[in-house]
Amino acid sequence: MVIDCHGHYTTAPKVAQAFRDAQIGGRADAPPPEISDDQIRESVQPQLAFQAARGTDVTIFSPRASGMAHHVGDTRANLQWARLCNDLIHRVCTLFPKQFVGVCQLPQSVGGSPADCVGELERCVTELAFIGCNLNPDPSGGHWTAPPLTDRAWYPLYEKLVELDVPAMVHVSASCNPNFHATGAHYLNADTTAFMQFLTGNLFKDFPALRFVIPHGGGAVPYHWGRYRGLAQDMKRPPLVDLIRDNVFFDTCVYHYPGIELLLKVVPVDNIIFGSEMVGAVRGIDPETGHYFDDTKRYIDAIPWMNAADKQKIFELNARKVYPRINSAVRLKPDTTDR
Amino acid sequence: MVIDCHGHYTTAPKVAQAFRDAQIGGRADAPPPEISDDQIRESVQPQLAFQAARGTDVTIFSPRASGMAHHVGDTRANLQWARLCNDLIHRVCTLFPKQFVGVCQLPQSVGGSPADCVGELERCVTELAFIGCNLNPDPSGGHWTAPPLTDRAWYPLYEKLVELDVPAMVHVSASCNPNFHATGAHYLNADTTAFMQFLTGNLFKDFPALRFVIPHGGGAVPYHWGRYRGLAQDMKRPPLVDLIRDNVFFDTCVYHYPGIELLLKVVPVDNIIFGSEMVGAVRGIDPETGHYFDDTKRYIDAIPWMNAADKQKIFELNARKVYPRINSAVRLKPDTTDR
Repeated sequence: MVIDCHGHYTTAPKVAQAFRDAQIGGRADAPPPEISDDQIRESVQPQLAFQAARGTDVTIFSPRASGMAHHVGDTRANLQWARLCNDLIHRVCTLFPKQFVGVCQLPQSVGGSPADCVGELERCVTELAFIGCNLNPDPSGGHWTAPPLTDRAWYPLYEKLVELDVPAMVHVSASCNPNFHATGAHYLNADTTAFMQFLTGNLFKDFPALRFVIPHGGGAVPYHWGRYRGLAQDMKRPPLVDLIRDNVFFDTCVYHYPGIELLLKVVPVDNIIFGSEMVGAVRGIDPETGHYFDDTKRYIDAIPWMNAADKQKIFELNARKVYPRINSAVRLKPDTTDR
Repeated sequence: MVIDCHGHYTTAPKVAQAFRDAQIGGRADAPPPEISDDQIRESVQPQLAFQAARGTDVTIFSPRASGMAHHVGDTRANLQWARLCNDLIHRVCTLFPKQFVGVCQLPQSVGGSPADCVGELERCVTELAFIGCNLNPDPSGGHWTAPPLTDRAWYPLYEKLVELDVPAMVHVSASCNPNFHATGAHYLNADTTAFMQFLTGNLFKDFPALRFVIPHGGGAVPYHWGRYRGLAQDMKRPPLVDLIRDNVFFDTCVYHYPGIELLLKVVPVDNIIFGSEMVGAVRGIDPETGHYFDDTKRYIDAIPWMNAADKQKIFELNARKVYPRINSAVRLKPDTTDR
């Protein structure tokens, strides 16, 4: 079984975003969008087609990351928007229970607090059977005004994550800072930033069971693995592999073979989870290979020196470990799959 | 000949920083530090020892990057500090003309403008024989309040860079944003950010001869080379190799063999310049190899599939192309070196 841990609902019916535009445009009473089941079925056909073509089975699916836009809207508006987005994800997962399992958007905001997110996280996990959340380390959208992820301000949310036994993917949203292109800079910077916060802080002493997935292959981190090993050593921190062992995981959203090979070479296999970000940041076909840039399974399949057992960890078993609630979804038990 | 394009004067006599501390502490009339030639000779012994041990010949040498701290001090204070730091570099280069050639710190500040830097750049190049500068894309120290590097606000400085035929290394300074560890996040984020700005903008149409070195191996960029190729394609931009050909270069400050191998695999050899950042961000010995993490020449030497001619481009010829004023320094002409 191949579990893709990183998919966003980038193809959601446009009326959803139109509602958001109205909402943040000041029309607080904008009516929620009417979206039929047929519209939802239609909207995820690209994902279903890519799953079938690429040989992946299920996508851990969350609202469009750049659409979260926590930097616009207050706590109340962003809660309404998060609920709407999460409910749409739930409908996708209900219509296609074998192909999608949900991860939620949190109602973060610039003026709000992480504690504001506890209720919606709990609703999504306990009522909608979601298995994780996306946590934005920079609700300001590129101004980085929130405290680091190791700050105690985040602890109320972490307590709930641990209680529910669900991980958070560290994922920023759109950038309103003209310095940062969203998918070409802001996303990767956030990944790198979060990792270094984890390296320097003692968060996992306080929360030994807290788990983060750092997407986009860990930003700059695996490429600079020697730098991070050296920084950890200079700072008298534990070795990186011990620092991250049970708490920090990288996805495989790296869109060329040499990058994937590097990731698989330097990061322990137990800390890598298959992901593609499909349909996402890069949508074209690589003229050098004739295949989609974001068909990341191909790169992993082609690694000659990794054995099948380790690849199974990346494709399936690590996701089951990091997102344990995926196992209680009967439809995803290996013996009940029918693909 | 081996030219290391990335060395900072991290071992400068401490009285220099004491002056800066006094200056930014409000003592505008603090006397400039008295530093003897013997103190300077003593201070660069670590660099000289590493050069000899590692088999590098000359370091393109600039003031300590984190010491620039453009986010503290006004235009006037930062000009005084830049002049002092640059004069110290000049003294190092005068005392050790075969081992060091200068690159200057610019008097940037939060309230200032890039035009403020033109005078000091010109002084350093024309009077002190410097061959480039370090350009801070974020003088705010982690709040990213300056315009992107493709903005016209930077053009007065670019005009002078082109007129003088010297490149700029894109290099941030210390971070005053608790989210960003300086050497573990802020530096790499800035590299990634600058590259994406160059990818999306048309700067090199306006300045075909403008050259930037992106340090620290290009931040996250080579690891995500497929992502950037795909983004460029989706955005109808030219292929990456054409976009960067004459204008954007990466150094080799990547502190492990797999990272260097990736860099050399994906980035055109003509766009890679040897650098080590010695004595810099990571100072320890890698227990896995028994050698210094930042002994980056070893990794390149060990690449089995790159021929000697290409390695000579990385070690010497590309630096001579990007920093052409290095060639007019008689002491560095190949036939006059005596090592």
